[in-house]
Amino acid sequence: RIDGSRLWDSLMEMALKGPGLRGGCNRQTLTDEDKEGRDLFKGWCEAAGMSVSVDSMGNMFARLEGTDPDLDPVMMGSHLDTQPTGGKYDGVLGVLAGLEVVRSIRDQGIKTRRPIVVVNWTNEEGTRFAPAMLASGVFAGVHTQDWAYDREDAEGKKFGEELARIGYKGDEPVGQRKMHAMFELHIEQGPILEAESKDIGVVTHGQGLNWLQVTLTGQEAHTGSTPMPMRKNAGLGAARITDLVHQIAMSHQPDAVGAVGHCDYYPNSRNIVPGKVVFTIDFRSPSFDTQTDMEQRLREGAAKIAEELELGLEIEQVGHFDPVTFDEGCVTAVRSAAERLGYSHRNIISGAGHDACWVNKVAPTAMVMCPCVDGLSHNEDEDISREWATAGCDVLLHAVLEYAEV
Amino acid sequence: RIDGSRLWDSLMEMALKGPGLRGGCNRQTLTDEDKEGRDLFKGWCEAAGMSVSVDSMGNMFARLEGTDPDLDPVMMGSHLDTQPTGGKYDGVLGVLAGLEVVRSIRDQGIKTRRPIVVVNWTNEEGTRFAPAMLASGVFAGVHTQDWAYDREDAEGKKFGEELARIGYKGDEPVGQRKMHAMFELHIEQGPILEAESKDIGVVTHGQGLNWLQVTLTGQEAHTGSTPMPMRKNAGLGAARITDLVHQIAMSHQPDAVGAVGHCDYYPNSRNIVPGKVVFTIDFRSPSFDTQTDMEQRLREGAAKIAEELELGLEIEQVGHFDPVTFDEGCVTAVRSAAERLGYSHRNIISGAGHDACWVNKVAPTAMVMCPCVDGLSHNEDEDISREWATAGCDVLLHAVLEYAEV
Ligand SMILES: NC(=O)NCCC(=O)O
Ligand SMILES: NC(=O)NCCC(=O)O
Repeated sequence: RIDGSRLWDSLMEMALKGPGLRGGCNRQTLTDEDKEGRDLFKGWCEAAGMSVSVDSMGNMFARLEGTDPDLDPVMMGSHLDTQPTGGKYDGVLGVLAGLEVVRSIRDQGIKTRRPIVVVNWTNEEGTRFAPAMLASGVFAGVHTQDWAYDREDAEGKKFGEELARIGYKGDEPVGQRKMHAMFELHIEQGPILEAESKDIGVVTHGQGLNWLQVTLTGQEAHTGSTPMPMRKNAGLGAARITDLVHQIAMSHQPDAVGAVGHCDYYPNSRNIVPGKVVFTIDFRSPSFDTQTDMEQRLREGAAKIAEELELGLEIEQVGHFDPVTFDEGCVTAVRSAAERLGYSHRNIISGAGHDACWVNKVAPTAMVMCPCVDGLSHNEDEDISREWATAGCDVLLHAVLEYAEV
Repeated sequence: RIDGSRLWDSLMEMALKGPGLRGGCNRQTLTDEDKEGRDLFKGWCEAAGMSVSVDSMGNMFARLEGTDPDLDPVMMGSHLDTQPTGGKYDGVLGVLAGLEVVRSIRDQGIKTRRPIVVVNWTNEEGTRFAPAMLASGVFAGVHTQDWAYDREDAEGKKFGEELARIGYKGDEPVGQRKMHAMFELHIEQGPILEAESKDIGVVTHGQGLNWLQVTLTGQEAHTGSTPMPMRKNAGLGAARITDLVHQIAMSHQPDAVGAVGHCDYYPNSRNIVPGKVVFTIDFRSPSFDTQTDMEQRLREGAAKIAEELELGLEIEQVGHFDPVTFDEGCVTAVRSAAERLGYSHRNIISGAGHDACWVNKVAPTAMVMCPCVDGLSHNEDEDISREWATAGCDVLLHAVLEYAEV
């Protein structure tokens, strides 16, 4: 078993890097706060006897040597970056639980044949630079590195430049590391485990994601003196499409979700009819067919709304992955670990995207989930109990030890 | 008659202070660009033999002495501040036409009994600091100066501090100036005069305005893993209220307009259900009863939407004025001037708010309008012809000379 207090203390200490306004975190990717968090993690890993290397996408790999160093390592990890209104656990738990697993193994004098690697994947959240899970995506060959370097934040700063600026553009070429398996512990970010009082979610699948960015172009005009029939109101179009997104997701209950999370009016002035609105749509479903249907209905409906309101319409896909099926062997290892440790568990589909979803393309992968209070996440009030974190980390330890061959 | 080329050259030179991105202007109130524009105007006024004073709200008064300095002066003017995507003429024409009237009077050796004062009112646009026509409102006793000083821009900077920062917080107490009458020349900002090929609009009334700021509070949550029934989506509420604003205005055609021009999502992240949205509503009508009806239906409808979506709702009025009737004597002077000069004209209701609407409360006031291309304003493509500007300025000259007693 791992040391739950030590894990908790590390979580609390990390939360001070990029603290939020209401008790959570704002440690967005490639900011100064992200650098501080990375530096802290690096120091901890080195103190725990691991050597840390960084690849050209900023992914950090902390390696504990195995008795047979030539064997492919077993990896575990997640991400240290957070949402602008993020919690203390989303992603962070998976990275620091990896560190705690290594600390426990060393404390208990356990030796494994295979090396064990704890990983911090860069830009999982995707808020500052879309898409989410950017660096694990490049690692898995889903995106090219050049394309990733060119992603821009809202101020036009490029991913590649910000990565160099904080000193985390490493020498190791991304994606060349082999691995035997990867395990990611993550909070559920949904309400199911808590509602059913389960300690552990055995993640069998991940739902698919489709991020669309919509640009509506109308005409800036005076809100007082422009007659209603002469207006080309991009804000009105955005409002109608936002409602449409909701209707489409509702028509597929309970197998789909949909929302507009980001919306910018231009020029955003009280007395100007909006000339342009840019907003993003997030559609998800565990079913491929539902994903396809939602996008098609959205495109048709948006085109109709734009035509009626005489608006220009552009729809760009800025993030996408198909529903994921995790590796049977790894999933079984997670379930057996929970069983062996006496934790209650159930199979679960991940509602969120995770680095594990991409890594699953290049290595056997599975996820462990623990409950979170009210299913709340991407919110500073995100919360978990120390017991939940401990149970998740215990299961991670056992699954990893099985694959790393004690 | 005035010198149309000189007027035009001054308009073009002023447009270089705070140039926009697409040929218009971005000279928002109390910015460095506003200061540059004010400095330029001040220099021009002094060169034209006027003395310039500034009151405690930053209103600038340039005075040409009359042969009877003890008589109340005749004022003319408008505003030099612009929208973020503003044109070169909205407001600026009225100020620089005032300057041109003085230049022409001096060129032609005309003497008036009454002093003539050209005025630049601070913060007419109301984009950076709501409400619009802020300083003419304080001048007319509609708002207190302390309240005005406390208005904040989107970054939390206060009006009073920004006024001091650009060096235009004058010693003269606001509102103590007497005046015999005031005339404001302005572009129509609507399509009527151009469509009917009229040179001059004789403004008899101004429509009323009602600005509401709405704050919807939901709960930030993960867009992927939060089940639809658990969401409190403030963005969805904002979308539905935006559509409602449009429906309400459409039900009063052609006697009302309504739109949402400003909208901010929080935290504005692709994968966070919006936890808060703040947006503004602009409702206008020449009818008092229609204004009342629109606000009431909005409040009822918004409350229903907020309740259905489990959102907190706050509605604050951030700007308001009743429909205006301009002074009969001044209006007649404008009409007679157009007649005498041979310009085609028609009576018109101003769709926009103007400083003249407030000044009308404390002195006999009227407005002259000239057409603008496609009725377009609050848009960098806002355009007028040199002939339209010249005709408007000619009418201003004649109306002012009548009141200033040649
Ligand atoms: N786990 C998580 O919140 N990932 C960010 C990508 C997503 O929105 O699913
Ligand atoms: N004329 C003008 O655009 N004034 C700003 C206040 C308003 O929106 O009417």
